[in-house]
Amino acid sequence: MRKAGKQTWVYENLVYINAAGTAVGPKEADGPLGSTFDITHKDLHCEEANWELAERKLMRESIDSCLGKMNLSYEDVDLFLAGDLLNQNVTANFVARDHQIPFLCMFGACSTSMETLATGAALVDAGFANRIIASASSHNATAERQFRYPTEYGGQKPDTATATITGAGSALVSRQKSPVRLTSATVGRVMDYGIKNPFDMGSAMAPAAADTIQKHFEDLQISPDHYDLIVTGDLSGVGSPILKQLLKDEGYDVSENHNDCGLMVYRPNQNVFAGGSGCGCSAVVTYGHLLNELKSGNLKRIFVVATGALLSPTMTQQKESIPTIAHGVVMEHVEEG
Amino acid sequence: MRKAGKQTWVYENLVYINAAGTAVGPKEADGPLGSTFDITHKDLHCEEANWELAERKLMRESIDSCLGKMNLSYEDVDLFLAGDLLNQNVTANFVARDHQIPFLCMFGACSTSMETLATGAALVDAGFANRIIASASSHNATAERQFRYPTEYGGQKPDTATATITGAGSALVSRQKSPVRLTSATVGRVMDYGIKNPFDMGSAMAPAAADTIQKHFEDLQISPDHYDLIVTGDLSGVGSPILKQLLKDEGYDVSENHNDCGLMVYRPNQNVFAGGSGCGCSAVVTYGHLLNELKSGNLKRIFVVATGALLSPTMTQQKESIPTIAHGVVMEHVEEG
Repeated sequence: MRKAGKQTWVYENLVYINAAGTAVGPKEADGPLGSTFDITHKDLHCEEANWELAERKLMRESIDSCLGKMNLSYEDVDLFLAGDLLNQNVTANFVARDHQIPFLCMFGACSTSMETLATGAALVDAGFANRIIASASSHNATAERQFRYPTEYGGQKPDTATATITGAGSALVSRQKSPVRLTSATVGRVMDYGIKNPFDMGSAMAPAAADTIQKHFEDLQISPDHYDLIVTGDLSGVGSPILKQLLKDEGYDVSENHNDCGLMVYRPNQNVFAGGSGCGCSAVVTYGHLLNELKSGNLKRIFVVATGALLSPTMTQQKESIPTIAHGVVMEHVEEG
Repeated sequence: MRKAGKQTWVYENLVYINAAGTAVGPKEADGPLGSTFDITHKDLHCEEANWELAERKLMRESIDSCLGKMNLSYEDVDLFLAGDLLNQNVTANFVARDHQIPFLCMFGACSTSMETLATGAALVDAGFANRIIASASSHNATAERQFRYPTEYGGQKPDTATATITGAGSALVSRQKSPVRLTSATVGRVMDYGIKNPFDMGSAMAPAAADTIQKHFEDLQISPDHYDLIVTGDLSGVGSPILKQLLKDEGYDVSENHNDCGLMVYRPNQNVFAGGSGCGCSAVVTYGHLLNELKSGNLKRIFVVATGALLSPTMTQQKESIPTIAHGVVMEHVEEG
């Protein structure tokens, strides 16, 4: 039975992350997880002529790194599922153009990392593909220009703002046995608590994360202590306490085993306001540090809930509030043998 | 075996379109297929305060109409897969907000109709969902403003331009027996022949359509006469002859059984240049007229190939060419009994 409850998918076959790749910019490389990334760049342009090209390079490098670890080439991949924050998902579309793998483009804002992973794993589980790659990327400068103000303008930010991370992460999923297995996923619903402030995504996204986590517990009839770690994508220092309170109000205490990728990726003194955000945030932390911990067995079972604020400048101008969504995937350490 | 060849999915279980709904604007209502649409509007605003709201209304109406035909409500649907042309897919995201069905947002530009249908049908086939709704929409005025010039500017257009249709289409897919069955789908690859002219999407998209159709024939080891109709999304009067020639060069003659939704939806004297385009184009023609013909048995087996130009104003400014993609789904008439 692959459908559990209303929103959760249980993979029937043994589906694994065989390898992952990450590529990041200078600030992420300088952060506490710097040593866990495969490729790091010393400047935001990543030796490219513009920031959009830099973001594409990061996604491409994350895929190359991932494939390289498995000695595979693009022809060995049946399906590429990817997305990013830019209008028309240009990063994903242009990367897909390079290698012409069959391609499904998805948009879940910063929830894209787990949207692509959950869907890709489902298609592998069912036999529609043998090997898929799921990718997500963001770039601080492309996002700032598109969603807020040009960086050169030097606009001041409130402490509730988050810093879009510069980075991309990719994962290769197949039924070939590996140390990290994907066992279930919960598909999110769009939530909107009426937040209109584009400088406070954490508050906007917390209800979506809480809803997906609660539905996950209900659908699988489990409690928070089922997991070593329940990690959200980019709720940051503002959204994380709200998430904990919302879940507590529903009778679920995650205070002991919750963390947020946006809080893990930077040191507090890196001038990142409330923490990191962006499609790349959950992607690089999950496919770097968290995967390492799962491989080694330091973490046995985690629930990664990528959180997306479906922020649109046009909608902000039309005085709409910000809808949000969160998709979660369960990853488990597999003993050898 | 659900994977056939490199790019094609064969649904293993019996998967059907149970119902569909369409809602369109005045020009589409006035076209040759006007009588096949469920809901028609007399003006582009659809009684809403702005065009973005109008587009959302159309998508919502297409879903309501679809569900109404089956006497179902939103709670009966396990998963909503949708997309549109607007930045951050705001139509799909805001419609998803209204009813809070678990939601996967996809972006394939005008290929979104078949991207969502193919993926939704795969998830139903595998048992991840019992009932899904796949939707796609476009609106002439929202698209013009975002991709070209404000309509009020009155810019002249060349004859190679297409007219983005105002409309939305939705389909309900499940394993409940119905007169139209979905049997296979081919996932496209991103193609780019170097076209940079945003007023000639037909030429840009023809290679993507040709590639998907050719791969479909190869993967299933069939020839063009396997189908009563091979219908593309919005190649229009410019792209359709190019498609036929590209396939002929590869040894496939589709001259007798090809048509294009963009050529079917308008009369030539409706001032639509080379024809209709947009996410809604393939959606309303397929879920309206073509589904009727399949239900009645006038058409027995068709291959619907929705074509998407991944046009981005930012990329046009950066002097990039236009990547394109096409996804196709096979629909078959089922005899009663």
